[in-house]
Amino acid sequence: MTFTAPTTEQLFVLKTITGIDELQGHDRFAEATPDLVEAIVEGVGEFAAGEFAPLYRIGDTVGARLIDGAVTMPEGYREAYQHYVEAGWSALSAPADHGGQGLPFSLATVALDSLGAANMAFALCPILTVGAIEALHHHGSDQQKALYLPKLSTGEWTGTMNLTEPQAGSDVGALRATATPRGDGTYAIRGQKIYISFGDHDMADNIIHLVLARTPDAPAGTKGISLFLVPKYRLDADGNPGEANGIKTVSIEHKMGINASPTCVLQFGEEGESVGELIGPEFGGMRAMFTMMNNARLNVGLQGVQIAEGATQKALWFARERVQSARAGAGRDPVAIIEHPDVRRMLLRMKAGTEAIRALLYYASGQVDRANLGVPGAREMVDLLTPLAKTYGTDLGSEIASLGVQVHGGMGYVEETGAAQYYRDIRIAQIYEGTNGIQAADLVGRKLGMAGGDVVRGLIAEVQADAGNHPALASLAGDVAEVTEYMVGASVDDRLAGSYPYCTMMAVMTAGWLMLKQSRAAQAMLDAGEGNAEFLKAKLVTTRFYLERMVPEAGGLKAAAMAGADLLYALDAEALAA
Amino acid sequence: MTFTAPTTEQLFVLKTITGIDELQGHDRFAEATPDLVEAIVEGVGEFAAGEFAPLYRIGDTVGARLIDGAVTMPEGYREAYQHYVEAGWSALSAPADHGGQGLPFSLATVALDSLGAANMAFALCPILTVGAIEALHHHGSDQQKALYLPKLSTGEWTGTMNLTEPQAGSDVGALRATATPRGDGTYAIRGQKIYISFGDHDMADNIIHLVLARTPDAPAGTKGISLFLVPKYRLDADGNPGEANGIKTVSIEHKMGINASPTCVLQFGEEGESVGELIGPEFGGMRAMFTMMNNARLNVGLQGVQIAEGATQKALWFARERVQSARAGAGRDPVAIIEHPDVRRMLLRMKAGTEAIRALLYYASGQVDRANLGVPGAREMVDLLTPLAKTYGTDLGSEIASLGVQVHGGMGYVEETGAAQYYRDIRIAQIYEGTNGIQAADLVGRKLGMAGGDVVRGLIAEVQADAGNHPALASLAGDVAEVTEYMVGASVDDRLAGSYPYCTMMAVMTAGWLMLKQSRAAQAMLDAGEGNAEFLKAKLVTTRFYLERMVPEAGGLKAAAMAGADLLYALDAEALAA
Repeated sequence: MTFTAPTTEQLFVLKTITGIDELQGHDRFAEATPDLVEAIVEGVGEFAAGEFAPLYRIGDTVGARLIDGAVTMPEGYREAYQHYVEAGWSALSAPADHGGQGLPFSLATVALDSLGAANMAFALCPILTVGAIEALHHHGSDQQKALYLPKLSTGEWTGTMNLTEPQAGSDVGALRATATPRGDGTYAIRGQKIYISFGDHDMADNIIHLVLARTPDAPAGTKGISLFLVPKYRLDADGNPGEANGIKTVSIEHKMGINASPTCVLQFGEEGESVGELIGPEFGGMRAMFTMMNNARLNVGLQGVQIAEGATQKALWFARERVQSARAGAGRDPVAIIEHPDVRRMLLRMKAGTEAIRALLYYASGQVDRANLGVPGAREMVDLLTPLAKTYGTDLGSEIASLGVQVHGGMGYVEETGAAQYYRDIRIAQIYEGTNGIQAADLVGRKLGMAGGDVVRGLIAEVQADAGNHPALASLAGDVAEVTEYMVGASVDDRLAGSYPYCTMMAVMTAGWLMLKQSRAAQAMLDAGEGNAEFLKAKLVTTRFYLERMVPEAGGLKAAAMAGADLLYALDAEALAA
Repeated sequence: MTFTAPTTEQLFVLKTITGIDELQGHDRFAEATPDLVEAIVEGVGEFAAGEFAPLYRIGDTVGARLIDGAVTMPEGYREAYQHYVEAGWSALSAPADHGGQGLPFSLATVALDSLGAANMAFALCPILTVGAIEALHHHGSDQQKALYLPKLSTGEWTGTMNLTEPQAGSDVGALRATATPRGDGTYAIRGQKIYISFGDHDMADNIIHLVLARTPDAPAGTKGISLFLVPKYRLDADGNPGEANGIKTVSIEHKMGINASPTCVLQFGEEGESVGELIGPEFGGMRAMFTMMNNARLNVGLQGVQIAEGATQKALWFARERVQSARAGAGRDPVAIIEHPDVRRMLLRMKAGTEAIRALLYYASGQVDRANLGVPGAREMVDLLTPLAKTYGTDLGSEIASLGVQVHGGMGYVEETGAAQYYRDIRIAQIYEGTNGIQAADLVGRKLGMAGGDVVRGLIAEVQADAGNHPALASLAGDVAEVTEYMVGASVDDRLAGSYPYCTMMAVMTAGWLMLKQSRAAQAMLDAGEGNAEFLKAKLVTTRFYLERMVPEAGGLKAAAMAGADLLYALDAEALAA
């Protein structure tokens, strides 16, 4: 089979869920005309299918390799990346004042959806670059922006995030890397960073590392952290990559998946000096990091959509080809397995689930654009949607990849078919950019606390207003409302104890609401004789499937969401592990 | 960390759920005295930890390899297998009249629980051998039994099941391998079989292949299938392995996991003649196959327990060692992550879930023993429990392995920690020995139909009688009862459409019931001052966790179980895949 980008679906969701037409009504996005949007969505979809998808398997079998201290990408990656840069797909939503195209983030989301569905590990590289752009755009000096943003925007240079150290994972405040003033305004960076995605590679002329480190006498914990820009090659007087900047790639990890993404251990300041510049104020590192990570969290949620799309296409193809057994009660001839009820159930679950998380991510990306436009309430909505989209997008993405393996039967467990690669690749997304557990903690902490709970209540009320005549969705929204009031009044421990099921419930409610919106929009278009009738009829089926069969499952999480922390601590650590 | 077999838990479940004492009351199992049971459980636990567990990782990294046409096991496997044979762990429940020890199947289940928790892929070899023993015991001639059972029982020879061919997976009836009479009562076997676990290896002196094939002029489909015994080496006049029997190992699969288990493509009758003997009557192949597979299905369900145990031990160890972040609202010092509420939630879910599926499998194994003793109703209960235990055991086992990865954070995705290996290894168990979807179809077909639904109703009534004062379990049992009556009256398609969620609901209900029994037994022992108080107090916590937080989730599946097939077929295959 060959991968095809789901452009009809993407354009439909952009229109009905993101509200791309309304975004175009703002001056800033006036260029995003329907014709341009369609051209971009179609164009990047073709590019992803033609250039990224054929490299997915070699990325797994050969993978990125560390050879003589430098990372070598598998054959074909360097060329495909160059084509990606030349085609201009990198710069879509980068700020227009420094070489970007200034288009909506929503459109960049669609581009990444297609690129990552074709090749998740490859498309991770641009995600990191976008994070670096965001951090520089919001916190960099004018000179830094002028020097670095244009090349990062085009993708000629790529970016990384250097947060983690062996003793400092989720606990960023425990990091020890140091930044010592060199007397000329720059800093000498020293320390080891781990889990650096695309920390080294051979696809771009320079790599711009954004590194969290401590200046001398910095306070302990997160308050003492600053963000530094540390290029792989120092820029010469003309702003071109010059001499090496003392960064050693110590090793790359042997991982369960995304083998085309080199996960590096980097040592700064060991092979000569690593010179860095402060980004933003000293001790402003955490704020800059959150800027860098926030959209990255949405983009990791989007990886769930990417894998779900790829796995679903593969499973649908296989299920139509594979003939096995007669259908019970319907003749004696063996049929394609897509005709068996439980295989249909799996395929519809995959398809409906993919659409549900796509809707959630596209909706969130539209809110990012509105927040950037200063639309009231949009920033808070992005803040609330981020943990939902990251957690549920990756959880359901993993489940859909697992169903993809299952549809293939024994062949799904054999690596040649590729179903297993989706399953292995997506598993990281529940972990990186803040584990899903940390996202859930963020929901019941910071996010639930916004406006004393009123941001959450506002979302629930919006769903309830629309869900009126849909019993399953209304019932779930009622459950979410009840758990919300419990959470608002609960102790920190009790909130955290129920945070994960609560996060899932709220995400399913939101995705269900967006599926209901799509269902209504599809029906309206069918009634009006507009659009692609076959696509719209399929949409009526998948939205019903999600609302009637998947939404009710989330109601089963209510007991766990409200069960409190006491039982979790009834045994001490020793007794629990006995 | 080092693996330790959970012997206190195993003995407790054997006593409270399997009813091992009551089994010992039967003459046939009189030897299974409490002292012997304890000695076996402790002994095999020590053996598993000491000999099988240290080989788990090399089984993954090196794996079984095909070298010059023969499978070579990783270093250490051959010796460990010899020790396993010498220690007598293989022969526990094999029939006493042919070299076995004639002990309860329940005890063999405990042995396999420990061996597979230490090394799932390795312990798969004995599972296959047990299947061959069962088939020969029930369908073989006296001469076949005398020649083959003693060596199979001790494990000196191992067994395989040869069912699948490229075009015949779940659809066994589509197989094409042929068996041509040679005029002396034996048959010449020809054909290719795929997915043959331990189809070749170097740990035993002979491999006894049980092969499904068609005699000349056999009717099409499953009715024309016969079962043949085809040894790797033909036996000489003294019953010892002699000349090779024309079986070629064409290749071994490159799989996502269980790399220590060579998954072979075998070609019969290509390199010289492959001589086979009929087992049971001509065309009796399907019946013999089900004998062979039935306990194998339970043993695959048990693989879920094995991996859950191993993954949980590893996660608990890691969570106590890994210090990261202060606990919210409880001081500023970083703590071991086991102290964070959501990590506790994951760990308790892993521990409680492991105990729940162990209870389900141990209960089913006790019913196997009762069925073998002719206890009325026990055979039907085994038949009903088999799809529940296979499906839910492996589904929850996979989920627990995933939680194990999650607890490890980024380190879980890196292969060195071993958490990922559990996740990759267990994924096959939802597929082989009849996919979980086929198990669910078996539940709503054959099993629900037993006695017009009364076997299922009997189980529900038993749960309801015990659940009286437990609201969550009583509520789920009520839901299962309601779905059952819907299923009894539904069309084939509607039954199959809801089969999977229904199967899960019934399995959770049954596991919840067994957890409630354990909870009561633990409380009674505590009240009486008997047993290990620390263990019993932990049991009160895990059973509560399962009953209060996990059982309610299954109620969320009711809508999907009763939603029918219409929506699944609202789109034809082409529109679904569009």
